[in-house]
Formats: sequence, C-alpha cells, structure tokens
Amino acid sequence: MFSVKDADEVKNLLQENFSGYDMGHEKVALKDSLSRITAKDIIVSEDIPGFNRSTVDGFAVHAKDTFGASEALPAILRLLPEIKIGAEVKSNLSYGHAAYVPTGGQLPQDADAMVMIEHTDDLGDGFIYVNKSVSPGNNVIYKGDDAKAGSVIIKANTLLKPKDIGAFAAAGVSSVLVKKRIKAGIISTGDEIADIDETLNGAKVRDVNSYTLYAGLLELGTQPYMYGIVPDSYDEIRKVTDRALQECDIVLISGGSSVGTYDMTCKVIDSFGKPGIFVHGIAMKPGKPTIIAKVRDKAIFGLPGHPVSAYFIFKVFVSHTFKVLNGLNHEFKASIKAYTAFNFPSNDGREEYVPVRLEETERKILAHPVFAKSGLITTLTEASGYIKISRGAEGVVAGQEVEVLPF
Amino acid sequence: MFSVKDADEVKNLLQENFSGYDMGHEKVALKDSLSRITAKDIIVSEDIPGFNRSTVDGFAVHAKDTFGASEALPAILRLLPEIKIGAEVKSNLSYGHAAYVPTGGQLPQDADAMVMIEHTDDLGDGFIYVNKSVSPGNNVIYKGDDAKAGSVIIKANTLLKPKDIGAFAAAGVSSVLVKKRIKAGIISTGDEIADIDETLNGAKVRDVNSYTLYAGLLELGTQPYMYGIVPDSYDEIRKVTDRALQECDIVLISGGSSVGTYDMTCKVIDSFGKPGIFVHGIAMKPGKPTIIAKVRDKAIFGLPGHPVSAYFIFKVFVSHTFKVLNGLNHEFKASIKAYTAFNFPSNDGREEYVPVRLEETERKILAHPVFAKSGLITTLTEASGYIKISRGAEGVVAGQEVEVLPF
Repeated sequence: MFSVKDADEVKNLLQENFSGYDMGHEKVALKDSLSRITAKDIIVSEDIPGFNRSTVDGFAVHAKDTFGASEALPAILRLLPEIKIGAEVKSNLSYGHAAYVPTGGQLPQDADAMVMIEHTDDLGDGFIYVNKSVSPGNNVIYKGDDAKAGSVIIKANTLLKPKDIGAFAAAGVSSVLVKKRIKAGIISTGDEIADIDETLNGAKVRDVNSYTLYAGLLELGTQPYMYGIVPDSYDEIRKVTDRALQECDIVLISGGSSVGTYDMTCKVIDSFGKPGIFVHGIAMKPGKPTIIAKVRDKAIFGLPGHPVSAYFIFKVFVSHTFKVLNGLNHEFKASIKAYTAFNFPSNDGREEYVPVRLEETERKILAHPVFAKSGLITTLTEASGYIKISRGAEGVVAGQEVEVLPF
Repeated sequence: MFSVKDADEVKNLLQENFSGYDMGHEKVALKDSLSRITAKDIIVSEDIPGFNRSTVDGFAVHAKDTFGASEALPAILRLLPEIKIGAEVKSNLSYGHAAYVPTGGQLPQDADAMVMIEHTDDLGDGFIYVNKSVSPGNNVIYKGDDAKAGSVIIKANTLLKPKDIGAFAAAGVSSVLVKKRIKAGIISTGDEIADIDETLNGAKVRDVNSYTLYAGLLELGTQPYMYGIVPDSYDEIRKVTDRALQECDIVLISGGSSVGTYDMTCKVIDSFGKPGIFVHGIAMKPGKPTIIAKVRDKAIFGLPGHPVSAYFIFKVFVSHTFKVLNGLNHEFKASIKAYTAFNFPSNDGREEYVPVRLEETERKILAHPVFAKSGLITTLTEASGYIKISRGAEGVVAGQEVEVLPF
C-alpha cells in the first residue's frame, strides 16, 4: 500500500500538506525579535535619515562655489557659525558662504555638498579656503536616501538576523509583529527507555531522543515540550499523542527500535483519522523507518528509535517542515569545503548521510568519515558535520571535494 | 605612536591579551545546556550500553552453532522463551539453543551473535531453522561498545550542539558544568543619537548599534546589557564605562561618528590605565577607526559609530574575542559557494568586506555586491552574507568563485 519515498518526494509532500499553516502572531519588543519570523511586511514610517546628513567632518557649501578651486587658486568662502552634531538647522546657506558640519551633522537647508576638512585651510580670518572642488551630493546623504517613509524595510516571512534588527532600529520600529513560535511536542516510546536521571533497572537504555530533539527544536526557534517516556502500550501512546496534538503544532514520536513498537506508532497515528499518514518509509540512510502524517491539520512524525537515525530525519525533514509551516523563503545553505580522506562506497539506492570528523591540514581540510559499528549518538561527538551522498552516486572516493554541512 | 594594524595582527593580540580568562562556571540542567561551553572534561560514569544489545529483531545464538548453515541445510536450534524488550537477562544460553530478542533487547549472557529473523524459519515445532551463518559479534553491540565508564565523552571548551546533548543523555549526564555566559556591556555615545522609541527632535539619528550589537551578542551566546545612549561628555562616558567595566567581562562603546567623539572615547579608555589601548585602527574596510584595549583584565572595544562598520568589526573581532575568552578550539567556518556577478575593484591595501545579495540560477548561485552610497544598515537587509577580499587581492572579477559568509 505504501512505497518508500525519496527525499525530494517527501519534501514536496510536506510543502503540499503544510504550507499556509497559521500559528498566529504576536508583538515582541525589538530586543526580543532575534531569530523570530516577521508576520507581515514591515513599513518605515519616517525618512531615514530625516535630514540631509554629512558623511565627513568638513564644510557645507554650494558645490557651484567650489568649481575650479585648487591649492593654487582656492575658493574663498565666508565662514558661518559651526553647526553642532544633533542640532536642527533651519537656516539656508547663501552663496559664497560655508559652515562647519561634523560627520553625521545636518547641512543647512540648501547646501548641496560637503568639502572635507583636509581640503580646506582656515587662516582665522573669517574665511575658509577650499582647495578642491566638489560636485553636488558629494559627502552627503540626503533625507530619505537610506529608506523613504512608507517603503517596506523587511518583508513578511523573514527570519530576523542582527542586521535586520539594526534596520528596524534605524527606522524607529520598537516592536515587531512576528509569527508565534511553533509548539513542538516530543514523545519517547519504548519499554526499554529510561530517563537520564533514573537508576537503570533491567536492560534499559537512556532516553536520548527527547534531549537531542529538544535541543534541535530550540535551535530551530520552536518552543519544545517534552511529554516524557511512554511505555509500549497502544492506549498510553494514544492518550499522550492526543494531548500533544491539542497543545502543539507538530508532534514528534520517537519509536522504540523493534518492529512491534514501530507498528504500534503507525496504528496510533492511523487512529486519528484523515488525511493521516502520507509518508511510510524514506529512502534514506540512516533513517528509513519514518512515518509522516497530517492529523487535525497538524504534523506528526514517527521517528526511528535509533538516536542517530532520528536526528538525521530531524535535520533533514523536521527542520524542513519548520520552514514550510513558517512560510520561510528559500535559504542558501552554508557548508565547509573539504576533501574526503577515505573511499566510502554507497550504492544501495538510498540517499546517504555520513558524519565526518574534520582535520585542518596545511593545504586543505580533510574529512574523515566517522564509522561506528553501533552508530550510536556518542560517535557523533567528534563529528563536525556530515556529507550527503545522493541517491544516484556510488559513494565518494578519497581526495574528492565534498560539502560538509555543519551540525 | 600607534600604527594601523592588519586583521591577523589584531587577532594575535586578542589571543595574547585575553586567553586564559576566567569567567567562572555554573551547573545547568542538560535541557538548558544548548550552545553553552563545557568548563571541564565530562566523564561517563556507566558503560553505554550497559548490556550486550541486539541491533536486529531475531535470535540470539552461539555463532558456532550456525556455521555452515544454508537454506538447503539449516542449523536447527531448540527455541527458548522469548526475551522481552527492557527485561534483564541473567541466564546463559546453552549450545544448540536460541532465544528471540527484539531490536534493542538484551542477549543471554554468553550468546555472541544475533541471526536476523528474515534468515530463519519457525515451523512451530519448538525449533528454529537458521538459514544463514553468522560470525561472533554479528548484529550485537557489546556492553560498553559505545562508551566505557570512566572515558571522556566531551572535552572541556566544547560549544554544545544537539548531538552532544544527545551523547550526554545516553551517558545519563543530567546536568553539565559550563562556563558562565560572558557578560557584555553596550554603550552608545553621541549627541546626535536618539533611542528607537523617542520622537526625533533636531538632526538626530536612531541608535542602531545598541540593537545590532545586542542581537549579535545574543547570537554569540553572551549575556548582553544595554547601558543606553550617553551624550558626548567625557565625564558621562567615563562614568558609564566605569560601571560597565565593573559589571561585565567585555564592554563595547560605539562612538559617535565625528572625529571629536572618537578622540573622547580614546581619552576615556586611556583614563583607566595600563595595559590600556593596544589596537588603534585596523586596516579593514569598513571599520578602520576601531580601538581595542585591556583594562582591569577586561576587554574594551571602541567601535566606529557607523552601523555597518560597527557590525563588521563585531562579526570579525568581537566574535573572535568571545572565542578567545572562552578558550574555544578552532572552528571550521561554513560558507556559501557563489560566483560574483560584478567586477569589484579593491586595492587600497585594506582587507575589505563586501555584503552580497545572492541569486539562485539554474546552474549556480550568483553574488551581487550590495552597493550603497550611504552604506547604512538598511542596505544590509537584502544581503544574505558577505565576501572577504584579502589585503593583497585587487578585488574580484565577474564570474569568480567566492565564499560567502552568511550573516
């Protein structure tokens, strides 16, 4: 009934199912808006700058008065009182006159250029001697040059970076309408799972997925909630999932590692009705046994129990869902250019993700695949990132250039 | 007395002056340890896993019992009761016997391999028919394979990522000793500077630097404090700087834009005594008029007033100082591979940083330099990142491959 899908198909399905999601919005103070996502276009209500502003320390002039000026034949202009930084200037500048303006200060109303102080002489006789001509607009930022009142300064659906926050500050935007943080519920299932501070009784392993996913969700800018560890019981898993669906926008269930638990997660998700499960296995290594569903307009992921698999599915598909839900625009992915130090065959028709340790050598960065018999999460501590081997490729050969995506 | 220094000299001086800094440490819950920095090596106190664990659904066996087995001639083993996931197994496995173990379950004490269920037949006669031989260790993770009790799981001075938090969870580390967050004070100076929510009276511009730096400091993982806008008065600037030095590990003063204000910032910093200012101008564009000092064992930056300049100095040198103070190891920088769409000359002997807008085309990513007459912060909103043109280079030519560092 279900066939395993490749990564691109899965991303298209996520787009189809979850674009246009409305998580609501809220107003936050500018200081608190880092990494939040704008809910609408933000419009400037004032010209930036609000006055004609000097970019140098020097003299405001009519450019015309300086035409032809040279060291040998300076233009001689009558000196007016100095203009102080921050002071509003309402007066005009008559032809044949000049006034000192510091960097950032306002020019007199009809002055059209600034002469840098280095190109003038002040002999103390009430005149300033200009040794170099300037053109209209030289060393001046005109009112509204940077942004005009009424123009859009940042578009909707923008993930805010420090530079954007700076632009808001310049425009006097002191609070920003942003999308509410995506609420993400994390459920760990499995009779063999123990919490991090429990004494281990029996053949138990600790709950890794709740913590890795929690941290990953924080990094994405969501609001994560841990629903704890649920035993392998249909009723218990269904009850907790039901609650998480009510409280969150997206729910991540990390399955036990055995086939039985996987089947139970499927049944629970199925029980919430249409449209239900639309991905049932992804052609990706690690991470194949993954379920994705849409239930009550929300996203549910059934993640593999294996921590490394669960984390790669998170990095590739949960983070993509975050972008889709938020309507974020295309993002350019940064990577580290490195050269593989090993041959690494990969030819089973699945997209493969290989964690790598990086080594800086004199000439280039070498990537060493992190192999691990167990593939458990502790082996990732030494990895700086991972490479992706696409479905068609037959692996990588030693010395090949690769793009390492940072963890 | 002071000569302008190049970027590498400045980084070396930061290393000399601020390595070994002690900001103290604190214990945080594992959930709260994302992006914190470990204060000491973290040691595992238990074996991971704590028992011999199956990686498949199948049958625990003595590998020897399966040698030579094939579909035509299966090894026939007497079936013992099924082992449940999470259950502790104290019994041994006699030769000639097998027991079902689910993925993640414990093997009987001396079983040394798992046969996948797919390679067996169960006819319901109390025996299991093994169609394929296995070698010792096949499909098993031995006790302590992933990490041995007493081994270092994460070294000191590691910036914690989700994968590391996962490794801590696996090891039952529920709280982590991390370095205290660097406290960073931000002071804006200049009579022409108004806060973001003030009505603009006179020829004022808004305080951009406090907000850009605040956001940038948050992104770095520091604890930023805004000390507000201080007028161009030696006494006032000194008073606020003195307080910031008492309360913070690093102080950023963003100067007014005129020469007069720059000089005043120098005087204030000088007044705090030795060792004092060690960088007085950096051969970098934008950002030349930058002061760096060490006072009371703390770092003070006198940043340019120009928001774009201040931000680039922040990206390049303040973030480097953060790494030095925290003793962080070498980091591999991720970048976006792009091709310039413009010729961009640069030959004035300074390292130059050029913001770029990226455009995805069918074949490659194009980088368009973001030019701006004013160079104000609003022009950066459309830039995804920036390229660095090193001191010796004469700029970039159209079509050249460049590494774009993301904002």
